[in-house]
Amino acid sequence: MANINRQITLAARPEGFPKESDFASVESPVPTPGEGQFLVRTQFLSVDPYMRGRMNGVRTYADPFEIGDVMGGRDVGNVVASNHPEFNEGDTVMGKWGWQDYALSDGAEVQRVFPELAPIQTALGVLGMPGLTAYFGLLDICDPRPGETVFISGAAGAVGAVVGQIAKIKGCRVVGSAGTDEKVAHLIDDCGFDAAFNYKKDTDYSAKLHELCPKGINVYFDNVGGAITDAALLRLAERARVSLCGEISQYNLKTPEMGPRLMVMLLIRQAKAEGFIITRFAERYPEGVKQLAQWVSEGKIKYREDIMEGLENAPAAFIRMLKGENKGKQLVKV
Amino acid sequence: MANINRQITLAARPEGFPKESDFASVESPVPTPGEGQFLVRTQFLSVDPYMRGRMNGVRTYADPFEIGDVMGGRDVGNVVASNHPEFNEGDTVMGKWGWQDYALSDGAEVQRVFPELAPIQTALGVLGMPGLTAYFGLLDICDPRPGETVFISGAAGAVGAVVGQIAKIKGCRVVGSAGTDEKVAHLIDDCGFDAAFNYKKDTDYSAKLHELCPKGINVYFDNVGGAITDAALLRLAERARVSLCGEISQYNLKTPEMGPRLMVMLLIRQAKAEGFIITRFAERYPEGVKQLAQWVSEGKIKYREDIMEGLENAPAAFIRMLKGENKGKQLVKV
Repeated sequence: MANINRQITLAARPEGFPKESDFASVESPVPTPGEGQFLVRTQFLSVDPYMRGRMNGVRTYADPFEIGDVMGGRDVGNVVASNHPEFNEGDTVMGKWGWQDYALSDGAEVQRVFPELAPIQTALGVLGMPGLTAYFGLLDICDPRPGETVFISGAAGAVGAVVGQIAKIKGCRVVGSAGTDEKVAHLIDDCGFDAAFNYKKDTDYSAKLHELCPKGINVYFDNVGGAITDAALLRLAERARVSLCGEISQYNLKTPEMGPRLMVMLLIRQAKAEGFIITRFAERYPEGVKQLAQWVSEGKIKYREDIMEGLENAPAAFIRMLKGENKGKQLVKV
Repeated sequence: MANINRQITLAARPEGFPKESDFASVESPVPTPGEGQFLVRTQFLSVDPYMRGRMNGVRTYADPFEIGDVMGGRDVGNVVASNHPEFNEGDTVMGKWGWQDYALSDGAEVQRVFPELAPIQTALGVLGMPGLTAYFGLLDICDPRPGETVFISGAAGAVGAVVGQIAKIKGCRVVGSAGTDEKVAHLIDDCGFDAAFNYKKDTDYSAKLHELCPKGINVYFDNVGGAITDAALLRLAERARVSLCGEISQYNLKTPEMGPRLMVMLLIRQAKAEGFIITRFAERYPEGVKQLAQWVSEGKIKYREDIMEGLENAPAAFIRMLKGENKGKQLVKV
């Protein structure tokens, strides 16, 4: 065991898009577990869009990071020393200790990961929060029915790609938007989407949605917000359901963007829009993981991972994910 | 029985706010009921915000009026001649025959009104569509719970005032906005609202809602849209429910207004916004009418009516209602 614990901390609140100088790397001795604690060594850490919101100084749905805080987030790692009755040396676990080599834990919000069932990093992706977000955010918020049209913005992201594949399992017509031709091809060829388009090239979103969703949109799963959401609202079918999962297009704005007032579309179409945070479904995670694992094992849900190596590259991985340069779930292997 | 049937028709599609010249008055002989039909003479007709949308040439949730069509809407009247097995001369009925002295009906979408139970025009107000819209739109869409804060825009309207009184019955803190000091006083003094404000005088809506809804807004019943809805969204409490009932501030705009993109507030607060059209609840109207009638008879729901006399004044009544000059449910006595 190395004696040094490297940590990536928040050095400055980003002005608009984050840059590497908004982060700092600090070193300290590896801590020793006290009574009821264990020490975990990070193997993979996850970078996710919601972290951008926590870098601002205001409370959204999660508490903000303070300057100097270790960047928070979920990790998978191994227990390397334990004074805890339920976690033993050698166990693989998933928890929220953020961007650092080592951390102490008392076991709160830590779950066991079983390497024999799936690659351990899937606990941060298709079998972790992104997969569960897709599962509950689609099925519970939107209740998609066979034959309905489901449109997903940010469809090639760690959440969106799973949403689309679950919607296909449920018998829906599935349409997605993504930011590169390569991602569009991945959605259609690998994930079984009925249609997808590159929102950076096909910029008349209303025309594109008219073409690809001729019967209107029954379910809209929104990871993006902004102009593409405007177009989706205008294309809603009667009694449509909108799951507001993310607004990545808005996270790096310094002031709220202006747009047409389209809430009236919810009225005209008798539609419902609902925001959710995945922790609402915490009691049902086991159900979700079990079902997702089954679908993955049956080949009904495919996933890709985009893994950068080295804790020191966590800020770069985070920034490229926000830019949409990742192909699949962005992870950092430590 | 007079021999002439006067009808108010749509003469031109309004550009922005409607004016009297957008309507025409035409006369024709009073028709004679055929087999299975009856003839009804109008006693009261209702003018409502949703009619403004139907005057445009596009489908919203209701089919548009065509130029030359009799202005549609609900009426209460008496059966004056009948070849229908279930409706007899002298019966009082409520139906949708619009702005005219007489109409034929085959009984479809016509309901019996009982003059001995309540003034017959309440079938167009507190015991009719406005009351039912308040009842189902609040209770079914928003599920208000004791102690929660309910904010209602356009609170002094035929729907809003009933929403607030039902919310009081359910044990909520009730706050409303209205367009005159007289209406504000009516909400507080007569309808039992905990607080209300004049949105034309107190134009810093965020500050006002911060003051009047210190714990945030758990339920927002929106009759108005626009800037006041922006402020309400920013003030939503966790897991808030928004009932989108009307957007009267937007109905007379020629192009969609721009506003800050605030759908993200639904995400941050895990809130739900749902639009509805009252006909969705048609099977449950009897339940709603029964409960509303009981509350009215117990004095728990008070209502006011603003009655103009004369079919020829229907356009003027409609316009003043859109301007918010009415005090209580706007009706025309024919």
